[in-house]
Amino acid sequence: MAPHMALWDEKEIFPVETMRKAAQLGFGGIYTQTDVGGSGLSRLDTSIIFEALSTGCVSTTAYMSIHNMCVWMIDTFGNEEQRHRFCPSLCSMDKFASYCLTEPGSGSDAASLLTSAKRDGDCYVLNGSKAFISGGGDTDVYVVMCRTGGSGARGISCLVVEKGTPGLSFGKKEKKVGWNSQPTRAVIFEDCVVPVKNRLGVEGQGFSIAMKGLNGGRINIASCSLGAAHASVLLTRDHLAVRKQFGEPLAHNQYLQFKLADMATRLVTSRLIVRHAADALQNGTGDAATLCAMAKLFATDECFKICNQALQMHGGYGYLKDYAVQQFVRDIRVHQILEGTNEVMRMIVARSILQE
Amino acid sequence: MAPHMALWDEKEIFPVETMRKAAQLGFGGIYTQTDVGGSGLSRLDTSIIFEALSTGCVSTTAYMSIHNMCVWMIDTFGNEEQRHRFCPSLCSMDKFASYCLTEPGSGSDAASLLTSAKRDGDCYVLNGSKAFISGGGDTDVYVVMCRTGGSGARGISCLVVEKGTPGLSFGKKEKKVGWNSQPTRAVIFEDCVVPVKNRLGVEGQGFSIAMKGLNGGRINIASCSLGAAHASVLLTRDHLAVRKQFGEPLAHNQYLQFKLADMATRLVTSRLIVRHAADALQNGTGDAATLCAMAKLFATDECFKICNQALQMHGGYGYLKDYAVQQFVRDIRVHQILEGTNEVMRMIVARSILQE
Amino acid sequence: MAPHMALWDEKEIFPVETMRKAAQLGFGGIYTQTDVGGSGLSRLDTSIIFEALSTGCVSTTAYMSIHNMCVWMIDTFGNEEQRHRFCPSLCSMDKFASYCLTEPGSGSDAASLLTSAKRDGDCYVLNGSKAFISGGGDTDVYVVMCRTGGSGARGISCLVVEKGTPGLSFGKKEKKVGWNSQPTRAVIFEDCVVPVKNRLGVEGQGFSIAMKGLNGGRINIASCSLGAAHASVLLTRDHLAVRKQFGEPLAHNQYLQFKLADMATRLVTSRLIVRHAADALQNGTGDAATLCAMAKLFATDECFKICNQALQMHGGYGYLKDYAVQQFVRDIRVHQILEGTNEVMRMIVARSILQE
Amino acid sequence: MAPHMALWDEKEIFPVETMRKAAQLGFGGIYTQTDVGGSGLSRLDTSIIFEALSTGCVSTTAYMSIHNMCVWMIDTFGNEEQRHRFCPSLCSMDKFASYCLTEPGSGSDAASLLTSAKRDGDCYVLNGSKAFISGGGDTDVYVVMCRTGGSGARGISCLVVEKGTPGLSFGKKEKKVGWNSQPTRAVIFEDCVVPVKNRLGVEGQGFSIAMKGLNGGRINIASCSLGAAHASVLLTRDHLAVRKQFGEPLAHNQYLQFKLADMATRLVTSRLIVRHAADALQNGTGDAATLCAMAKLFATDECFKICNQALQMHGGYGYLKDYAVQQFVRDIRVHQILEGTNEVMRMIVARSILQE
Repeated sequence: MAPHMALWDEKEIFPVETMRKAAQLGFGGIYTQTDVGGSGLSRLDTSIIFEALSTGCVSTTAYMSIHNMCVWMIDTFGNEEQRHRFCPSLCSMDKFASYCLTEPGSGSDAASLLTSAKRDGDCYVLNGSKAFISGGGDTDVYVVMCRTGGSGARGISCLVVEKGTPGLSFGKKEKKVGWNSQPTRAVIFEDCVVPVKNRLGVEGQGFSIAMKGLNGGRINIASCSLGAAHASVLLTRDHLAVRKQFGEPLAHNQYLQFKLADMATRLVTSRLIVRHAADALQNGTGDAATLCAMAKLFATDECFKICNQALQMHGGYGYLKDYAVQQFVRDIRVHQILEGTNEVMRMIVARSILQE
Repeated sequence: MAPHMALWDEKEIFPVETMRKAAQLGFGGIYTQTDVGGSGLSRLDTSIIFEALSTGCVSTTAYMSIHNMCVWMIDTFGNEEQRHRFCPSLCSMDKFASYCLTEPGSGSDAASLLTSAKRDGDCYVLNGSKAFISGGGDTDVYVVMCRTGGSGARGISCLVVEKGTPGLSFGKKEKKVGWNSQPTRAVIFEDCVVPVKNRLGVEGQGFSIAMKGLNGGRINIASCSLGAAHASVLLTRDHLAVRKQFGEPLAHNQYLQFKLADMATRLVTSRLIVRHAADALQNGTGDAATLCAMAKLFATDECFKICNQALQMHGGYGYLKDYAVQQFVRDIRVHQILEGTNEVMRMIVARSILQE
Repeated sequence: MAPHMALWDEKEIFPVETMRKAAQLGFGGIYTQTDVGGSGLSRLDTSIIFEALSTGCVSTTAYMSIHNMCVWMIDTFGNEEQRHRFCPSLCSMDKFASYCLTEPGSGSDAASLLTSAKRDGDCYVLNGSKAFISGGGDTDVYVVMCRTGGSGARGISCLVVEKGTPGLSFGKKEKKVGWNSQPTRAVIFEDCVVPVKNRLGVEGQGFSIAMKGLNGGRINIASCSLGAAHASVLLTRDHLAVRKQFGEPLAHNQYLQFKLADMATRLVTSRLIVRHAADALQNGTGDAATLCAMAKLFATDECFKICNQALQMHGGYGYLKDYAVQQFVRDIRVHQILEGTNEVMRMIVARSILQE
Repeated sequence: MAPHMALWDEKEIFPVETMRKAAQLGFGGIYTQTDVGGSGLSRLDTSIIFEALSTGCVSTTAYMSIHNMCVWMIDTFGNEEQRHRFCPSLCSMDKFASYCLTEPGSGSDAASLLTSAKRDGDCYVLNGSKAFISGGGDTDVYVVMCRTGGSGARGISCLVVEKGTPGLSFGKKEKKVGWNSQPTRAVIFEDCVVPVKNRLGVEGQGFSIAMKGLNGGRINIASCSLGAAHASVLLTRDHLAVRKQFGEPLAHNQYLQFKLADMATRLVTSRLIVRHAADALQNGTGDAATLCAMAKLFATDECFKICNQALQMHGGYGYLKDYAVQQFVRDIRVHQILEGTNEVMRMIVARSILQE
């Protein structure tokens, strides 16, 4: 993907065909079970794959990670009929999925969402809107958290809404700092009728499903930051070796050497906690959710600093779109905000410590 | 300018007419003498003006600050004929100026520049190229550092080259992370013939002129960072008051309150050192150059952190181009790099301390 | 004081005679009015004096700054009789003063203090205890905040209690990380009878007096951090010049040069905000309290980092008590905690921003 | 050890008997082979043990880690006779060892050491001095790096010098910021005659032995920082739960919660890189030395910040010697300096990246 990332960014291209090729390698449902077309790999495998892919294009990989999370949610919480109906075409990326949790009025406080799903016979009638939806408008399958019951987390259910459903529409395409190879739009429900057979799990299970999906989502997004930081460190090492000032390569400057050492050290450390959390999630240990929050917090913060420092070490070139390092900075900036802001990660970790 | 900054950024518009209106207020030659159309104000006044303007658009203000630096250089180092020939139309911004020091092979190490100016009777013949030139191609007057003598700083002279001079051409318009309301291009000299009467000062004085210009340039660019940070703090304060999560305004979160306090404290402190350096430069104190370097280092680093933290505190909205905070982040990122990278600032400060 | 600071630290000596000599120079009541023996200088003068003195011994200077705050409180809020009774011997440091606000159960939340003063004819009967009192047990005059009315800030009054008053006793001398040239003890009141004529201001004014004193106290303590940082930067510069590794002075290492530049820049910046706050307090501007909080927060945090980095740059020597740099680190560590923790400073600043 | 750490610190007691008890549990030669009395455990086991012990007393544990490094060096590079002569009494801690590399004029640049060992028949005659020697004067066996050949690393050999050898003497006991339960003295050689049979390995192998020892030493010292940080996080959690301000426990303050989350996250991350490096060293992977440097750099820097933040969150109590948190801060401060300063760690890491 690396040769295309700048173009996809500039032209805001959603690289459908490239992703389908990646799906042929099994990257459409990495941690989805094999009987529905998934690759059946572990969370650690998944992290390593997303880290590698994101060295080529963070934005595209990040979308793929969200797609994978959705497929996993259907695979895990769906019944057999749902698994076989939805997963195969998603695993092959013939169809694309979007995750619909955040609303204009509920970001960090997801449990307060307002989108309502009123039961009407065999159907739910949805009304409300979702914000910041990756892939929104260009994707086929929407995994939607909506309120079927009372207020709070327990009133939330999870429905799969297919593109083309009457009453489903989309907002304008958002203009963003990065993540430009994936469209972001509001998703709007106006008397949108969805069959009950599209509900994952039971009524009231939606929030639990959303949070479980996010544990993996946090590892995945952190893995995308790792890839960006890894690529940026290598770009910087090469730039320092080639670029000369004061008659010698920049690499001869002790200050830059030591900064590079700090960057590499923090990259290695970030990778360790992401993989450690991936293992914990795979093994279902009791501290898995806390470790996923720690990994997302640490890795997305540190990797942003690494990429931003890499930009600085490119001098004026770092500010030009001809050089990839600035795109890594722009693309991973949002990782500190989404899948739960890093402030929410601190809240999760603190709660865990203080309750011990 | 505030209502237009997003559009100028998106469409990469160089807002000539808006700047001419600003020039009517005296902002085309703020610290240029009044007999050639300047406003004759102090460095401190200048800093305050650029800080205020940059709350409306950093990129445009930053270009204006470079223009002002060029006018000041002509006013200060030019003879009477040069002052009256060039300054009035620059002060009114009927014409625009560009500062040409950096070359593809010499950024931080400016004294190693290669652009040559060979004397030929009443003229110099210029060959070479300049990189990252703000306004390049769209401006009328180029203040060019070039080599008229041997290697090193003492072989450098300063020539004023006018647009339309045969042999003067421009590279492609660079695509950048920010600073999009001002074009950036390479400036190329191929047997470009410039009259000797366009030389500022004597042969060999060019590097000294360049550095003296940059002392003010550093204060100016730091002032633009102040404006961005000031605007970002206010935007954040307002966002925290309005945006609700968990049933109350974000402003009720102690963590965000304390972060806002840190941001405000560092903004005030940044402003103090910028203004202190401006005063020192005005008064010609012995430590003025060191203080200008300190001010640029401190204020551009801290203000970037402030704006970046402000983006974070906007949550997902901070990543959307509908919100100004992300543009402040993108625009001021380059202030840590240009007018001497912040690594060069550290070099200047360290040298001063160790030589004491 | 510099030649003695290590000994005073090791032996925990309260250098009474040295302070009396300083008082002969006018340092016992720097910003106290001249008619009662003070020097009548400004807050800015005071800051400069404490900064200079603390390069010699932070701990002793810091105690002197607290003494000065107490004298100022008596001078400002006392009546003529009180001013003339207490101030002259305090200005000459024949007598020493302590400030008694904090209690074991109320640190940051000073307004919740419990020490009670019950009116009984011409006297108050005090019961309760104060914690972390600088000079406690070795000083002569205690400026005590106590509760004469209901709960909250408005129930607090300010009494001057003299050593030797029956019912006044002291806890054990605390062992501390630094600040060892000044004793710290609990101050205990058990049916301690204090004449009403020792009350500063009216009943209920105590909290206001305490807070006004602290505005200056914060500048003073921040000034002591400045002195420590200044001395540490100079010690480091000299160490780098002398100490050789890899065949050349440490000063030739670019990384250390750049760190030194950062340290110097942050020292200069810290000094600017402290002096700016001092001016604001002197002039009684509306934002003075906020600026005092910003100055204390910024300068004590940054100066600690400077001193700690200076220790690091001394290598193994920095850890030995033969070298002064470690004492600066130990002594100023507490400045981030007392006179209101830096967390409380953030609270004050945030409140000011959000109320605007 | 926890109940004694404050006393050992105050009285500067080298707790010989306590360490001998620890040795009965196998902690005198943890990664020494079992045939000479060692425990034969892995580097990872060793790290976990030192982490656990240092929650009780960092200073004592840190000395034990140096002792263990010395025993390992004799075990690994000694011949059978040497192994059996020295190791058993060291493993049981009947005797104590010191590591003698640093000299007054050579810290970071260890290869430039000057202590000379001139061959004279079956003996070497040593002259020179070593600085900052842990245990120096109170220990029995000194593993000494000295120059038997020309300048540079290849002229260095490793000798075991026993206490009581004529010509071996010690400097005054150093007064230090922390690490007070272990004596630090200069070790002085004046015509000190050491039998050739006390040389580990061949002539010229000393520097290699020293560096290999330090790889493990760096993991060990980093492990001691982990223990301090772990204990400090727990102390802080408990303090926040108990201490009340503004009518509720400090733990209810969001700012402190989030800080605690950051501390815990960075502790977990520090632990991961230390253990990862321990595994790499155990397995002899090619990047083991780089990983040991990264682990030491990251963990000792981050854990110091954790402990220092923990002190802050204790308020005034954190500054009192009655509370353990300040001792953790003082004790681990030196870990950023010794076993190679963290600046040297950056040098090692940078070299590795740039040579790739």
